[in-house]
Amino acid sequence: MGHNGVIADPADMIGYVTEPRDAFHGRALCVVRPGRAEEVAGVLALCNDAGVGVVPQGGNTGLVGGQTPDESGEQIILSLQRLDRIREVDPASDVMTVEAGVILARAQQAAEEAGRYFPLSLAAEGSCTIGGNLAANAGGVHVIAYGTARDLALGLEVALADGRLLSNLSKLRKDNTGYDLTRLFIGSEGTLGVITAATLKLFPLPRSRATALVGLADPQAALALLTLAKARAGAALAAFEVLPRIGVDFVLRHLAARDPLASPHRWYALVELASPAESGTDELLTDLLAESLEQGVAEDAALAATLEQRAGLWRLRETLPEAQKPEGGSIKHDVSVPIESIPAFLAEAEALIQRHFPGARPAPFGHMGDGNIHYNISQPPGADRAAFLARRDEMNELVHGLVRKFGGSVSAEHGVGRLKRDLLRKVKDPVALEVMRAIKQALDPKGVLNPGKLL
Amino acid sequence: MGHNGVIADPADMIGYVTEPRDAFHGRALCVVRPGRAEEVAGVLALCNDAGVGVVPQGGNTGLVGGQTPDESGEQIILSLQRLDRIREVDPASDVMTVEAGVILARAQQAAEEAGRYFPLSLAAEGSCTIGGNLAANAGGVHVIAYGTARDLALGLEVALADGRLLSNLSKLRKDNTGYDLTRLFIGSEGTLGVITAATLKLFPLPRSRATALVGLADPQAALALLTLAKARAGAALAAFEVLPRIGVDFVLRHLAARDPLASPHRWYALVELASPAESGTDELLTDLLAESLEQGVAEDAALAATLEQRAGLWRLRETLPEAQKPEGGSIKHDVSVPIESIPAFLAEAEALIQRHFPGARPAPFGHMGDGNIHYNISQPPGADRAAFLARRDEMNELVHGLVRKFGGSVSAEHGVGRLKRDLLRKVKDPVALEVMRAIKQALDPKGVLNPGKLL
Ligand SMILES: Cc1cc2nc3c(=O)[nH]c(=O)nc-3n(C[C@H](O)[C@H](O)[C@H](O)COP(=O)(O)OP(=O)(O)OC[C@H]3O[C@@H](n4cnc5c(N)ncnc54)[C@H](O)[C@@H]3O)c2cc1C
Ligand SMILES: Cc1cc2nc3c(=O)[nH]c(=O)nc-3n(C[C@H](O)[C@H](O)[C@H](O)COP(=O)(O)OP(=O)(O)OC[C@H]3O[C@@H](n4cnc5c(N)ncnc54)[C@H](O)[C@@H]3O)c2cc1C
Repeated sequence: MGHNGVIADPADMIGYVTEPRDAFHGRALCVVRPGRAEEVAGVLALCNDAGVGVVPQGGNTGLVGGQTPDESGEQIILSLQRLDRIREVDPASDVMTVEAGVILARAQQAAEEAGRYFPLSLAAEGSCTIGGNLAANAGGVHVIAYGTARDLALGLEVALADGRLLSNLSKLRKDNTGYDLTRLFIGSEGTLGVITAATLKLFPLPRSRATALVGLADPQAALALLTLAKARAGAALAAFEVLPRIGVDFVLRHLAARDPLASPHRWYALVELASPAESGTDELLTDLLAESLEQGVAEDAALAATLEQRAGLWRLRETLPEAQKPEGGSIKHDVSVPIESIPAFLAEAEALIQRHFPGARPAPFGHMGDGNIHYNISQPPGADRAAFLARRDEMNELVHGLVRKFGGSVSAEHGVGRLKRDLLRKVKDPVALEVMRAIKQALDPKGVLNPGKLL
Repeated sequence: MGHNGVIADPADMIGYVTEPRDAFHGRALCVVRPGRAEEVAGVLALCNDAGVGVVPQGGNTGLVGGQTPDESGEQIILSLQRLDRIREVDPASDVMTVEAGVILARAQQAAEEAGRYFPLSLAAEGSCTIGGNLAANAGGVHVIAYGTARDLALGLEVALADGRLLSNLSKLRKDNTGYDLTRLFIGSEGTLGVITAATLKLFPLPRSRATALVGLADPQAALALLTLAKARAGAALAAFEVLPRIGVDFVLRHLAARDPLASPHRWYALVELASPAESGTDELLTDLLAESLEQGVAEDAALAATLEQRAGLWRLRETLPEAQKPEGGSIKHDVSVPIESIPAFLAEAEALIQRHFPGARPAPFGHMGDGNIHYNISQPPGADRAAFLARRDEMNELVHGLVRKFGGSVSAEHGVGRLKRDLLRKVKDPVALEVMRAIKQALDPKGVLNPGKLL
């Protein structure tokens, strides 16, 4: 494994046993950094025999503590970072084969160099890994057009708990020879196997792109705009994000930004179309905006005329979490509901929160096109930060209770990990939990893979 | 369950214990036809206790014997046909909830009546059921744009082997709360659970469509055309089917059809673009054809100018299996290889077959855009039909051996069932088989669900 394969000095382990936001920490026996899939399998075989818990870790950017060991100091961290080879890019088959430790941005770039597009994109792309993306079934801003990480893999190579290596680096679009193991391992957060490599789908490079910020009266109008955009643009609809006025206010107040629209609106949608054709998206978006203004769906709209203007519109959306920080404590929820229910959900949530937390400021934003809202609530202005955050559980119960009423999910894209493990037991269909446990037991009978996470 | 719930008279069972082509037959204790999901679960609980094998059956159109009981007469057939309610169509969320026994064509129609599109489409759509489509992970002609059945469901309701009912009729696009059980049951051919209902994704209705038949020199040119079509049309590429000249000859010879192109070509591609925009596909296809003629990729092309012409082009492709019948015995293979390898695979297969079966006439056709070729071989003209068919196993070994050499699948869309169960044991990665068996054991420990199929 080479002399750099094992880190046992606590000082050198710091970057692995905590995560960048320091929301989760733990202790570890050591960090093992294998360089090849067979070595990963070998480590697992040893740990399985010895009954030692293994915590897989990629870029360490996960938001639910899945990649952090517990406090026992008896688990090892299995870092996949050294498995960082791009094994093959095959543009004619629209597939690339990459190892688990490849950084997402590097994978995107490798695709682009071959004249292809790998659409997974999220703010952590400079440091998260393909293995982590798949283990967590990452989402991001292009799910509406391309799906989540689960939709982007054709096959996997996986080291099983007992050290067997499952090799299914398929380049096939269609293969009906048995159960879909690939998608079972994707999203299992390192509890069923350790992903060592994957075959990923590639797409044509978008050659034209058009982006607009649309001012709206309310979420109902956002839903009407989304429905119209899907009908007119179909698969060319590459992003549909929403944010409320208060979010725009936060950004304008704390970050050097200008309001792209002449007067304020209660809600905003960021709409982006993309197409592999050389042109056409500008015209399509202009027509769509004209139609929505005419129908009274939209109040106003700003179409980005330059690359810089486009970046400015995206900054408004992407810096919102950042701009929320100076506003004091905030309590966050990564939830989804059926798309049709978003307006009702937002209205009821606002009323409920005002009743229990008068003055608290919800700034719900995110991937409306996928039904996925990041329901973040800032404290009342001037209120005591610690006192507000101390009531986190109460707030979570309000929001998650409502989410369940609408048939939604309490973790739309960030997963379960440590953070939502107890919550999962409460909200998930008991039969589904039993089936999940039966599968876990079948694939990891000794429970060495990421113990205490997810289940 | 009502007086029509059980059929025990052998005469009335005939339509269930055989299938329309009469390729598979068996015997059954009885046919049980529950009308509600809870009744399905109840039947399973009883059978599990008694150790009686249960063969789920939908429209009975499967091609691999999965829905047919064995010869023991000790299994029951569980027909889902009476679970035929469309529970809800929710166009705003782009989801519909349908029961397992709903006929595919009816589901398509229900979507269309709500102004939406359900893209799964195959020649058996008038009689196959949604439950069967999901259990078999059906493909069809629109996989290139919309994926297989597995990509089209958001959630399932499933009766488990022991009679528990798993309820996950999710309308969510994103939900990272645990393992992907939905996609595990999809494609499991009734061996892990009985699907009683599903939430299905809906899409915008295509409002413009353009179709062309393109004459090509060889499969290499077809690959170049496919690559160009993907680059230019992206997600608007709704179908890309290929067929060889001999297939066109068969159709022209035996069915009332005309050659749409002035002179013969060695290969043909049927290219269809579709878009929710009111226009644009005709222009896009015209440009694409012009570019491919200019580059020497295409030799000639006929663009359908009327609905009738479009239907004529599709008939050429869809009646090929029919037109092959008067040419004598044929041996069929439903295979896939990485898209890039299709030309090499076709060339090597042709050479191999000519060496071992001089005069045999391969007429490989199908879903090139998905890497899925129906490799059907007609007997040599005038040869003895029975003698040719008697060498089926030898032919299968040649074709499947080559498929494996190219990293392909021996069952791209029709599944394993009874037909390819022994083959699966030979060709599948042994670790994958072990994992599949472990999951089967975890979910159906007594082995009552579709015994003798798949595994
Ligand atoms: C600024 C920021 C923005 C983000 N934006 C998004 C977003 O838009 N959408 C979204 O979905 N997520 C987002 N995330 C969350 C996170 O980046 C993703 O979940 C990412 O996919 C995690 O990748 P990673 O390599 O960092 O994995 P890690 O954090 O190292 O691990 C994540 C989980 O996967 C497991 N794991 C890691 N590698 C493997 C492997 N090879 N085999 C098996 N299990 C493994 C770990 O045990 C852990 O449970 C964001 C995070 C940050 C910090
Ligand atoms: C003319 C023709 C054309 C075809 N074209 C295609 C094509 O293009 N692409 C393609 O993929 N297939 C094709 N097929 C195959 C077949 O139509 C599909 O596999 C179809 O999805 C089967 O549906 P069914 O309802 O008839 O299922 P059945 O034949 O009744 O059953 C199929 C399998 O699913 C299981 N099953 C059925 N219902 C359930 C349930 N509710 N829960 C659990 N298990 C269940 C059965 O046990 C069996 O293993 C074609 C068949 C014909 C006859």
